[in-house]
Amino acid sequence: MSMLSADPSFKLLAICSCVLVLESLVLAGITPAKRAKHKGFINPEDNRVSFGEARMVDGAEHPEVARVQRAHRNLLESLPLFFGLGLVYVLSGAPVLGAQVCFIGFTVMRVLHAIVYLNAVQPWRTIFYALGTFCLFGMIALILRAVLAG
Amino acid sequence: MSMLSADPSFKLLAICSCVLVLESLVLAGITPAKRAKHKGFINPEDNRVSFGEARMVDGAEHPEVARVQRAHRNLLESLPLFFGLGLVYVLSGAPVLGAQVCFIGFTVMRVLHAIVYLNAVQPWRTIFYALGTFCLFGMIALILRAVLAG
Amino acid sequence: MSMLSADPSFKLLAICSCVLVLESLVLAGITPAKRAKHKGFINPEDNRVSFGEARMVDGAEHPEVARVQRAHRNLLESLPLFFGLGLVYVLSGAPVLGAQVCFIGFTVMRVLHAIVYLNAVQPWRTIFYALGTFCLFGMIALILRAVLAG
Repeated sequence: MSMLSADPSFKLLAICSCVLVLESLVLAGITPAKRAKHKGFINPEDNRVSFGEARMVDGAEHPEVARVQRAHRNLLESLPLFFGLGLVYVLSGAPVLGAQVCFIGFTVMRVLHAIVYLNAVQPWRTIFYALGTFCLFGMIALILRAVLAG
Repeated sequence: MSMLSADPSFKLLAICSCVLVLESLVLAGITPAKRAKHKGFINPEDNRVSFGEARMVDGAEHPEVARVQRAHRNLLESLPLFFGLGLVYVLSGAPVLGAQVCFIGFTVMRVLHAIVYLNAVQPWRTIFYALGTFCLFGMIALILRAVLAG
Repeated sequence: MSMLSADPSFKLLAICSCVLVLESLVLAGITPAKRAKHKGFINPEDNRVSFGEARMVDGAEHPEVARVQRAHRNLLESLPLFFGLGLVYVLSGAPVLGAQVCFIGFTVMRVLHAIVYLNAVQPWRTIFYALGTFCLFGMIALILRAVLAG
């Protein structure tokens, strides 16, 4: 089975998956960092490991923390869709060109989306989101063509 | 590797995955549509692209928006589980009949679940959720049988 | 293709995936159980199926319910990352030893993480989270080595 590592679509999917997982881990790491900076914690037990004047978050998080969380959550809403389709695309024998456009397109759009989300830049956030979603639609179309015609 | 597109379990998984991704994208698209309708935005920068009397959402979303989000979030909580098990099921050589029951069952139940969630119909929401979860349990049982006996 | 069920990395991934999906379903099941115990519901239609003195949750959930939800959400944030990398790892032909360390390591850490999260034990929660994340980094490194060198 290890011959798959020579398949160009699989190779691309592997690299894009690693980039997207790293992006998600970075966004996940920023949340507690921002929380610590603003001295707010949502779990009472977290207070014990910090020093001094930390306070409990009751209800709402600091706006800066909430923004990172929204960017992270938005990524987590589309990542499983990409992962759910990615290997199916590769294993269905759909065209390599489509993989290059959709895999790279989705990955680049999601990285740009997170950057503009954190910096509150509109209408780019919506544009990058839409382009990433188009890549998912493209994968769906090419998968269905491959399995229904095959 | 492209011979997988002739495998009946794989074919079914590909189609079900596409349907579920489409469902998730539809629910994701309804959220901003409802937000725009109720003139509420959660990101300050979104206000600039709308006209006139839009207001910032501080804390709680409009109940209709919150309902779509809950339906979407509920889908996103089970979709990765299905995607995580789906290809493992196909590649483990578990029976095709089980794939037909569990893949189609899960997909149909999750589509129905979203419909009744948006329309606030109980006890059907709980019933469809439970039946979808049973399909996941079925996949787990058949995967374990295939890899532990194989 | 069913020969994959004899591949030791695949076998391990299948078992770990089943354990993680079960863990997620257990956490998903605890939420409504705790909500029922504290007689709070977030969907108005749920009230009809309960008896007597149930009340609507307006805004905040009971702290105990909110804690289960945070533990569940935390799991759901890392599960898709593991599923997205897991099969890519196996199909890339990356070493079996790495699969044994990372797959088992991630699964054990995530189960322990949920247990200490529900019991509010720090600093173990952060330690188990970090160790689980290290396993993902390990998978990324070994996948990239396999596909870039292969």
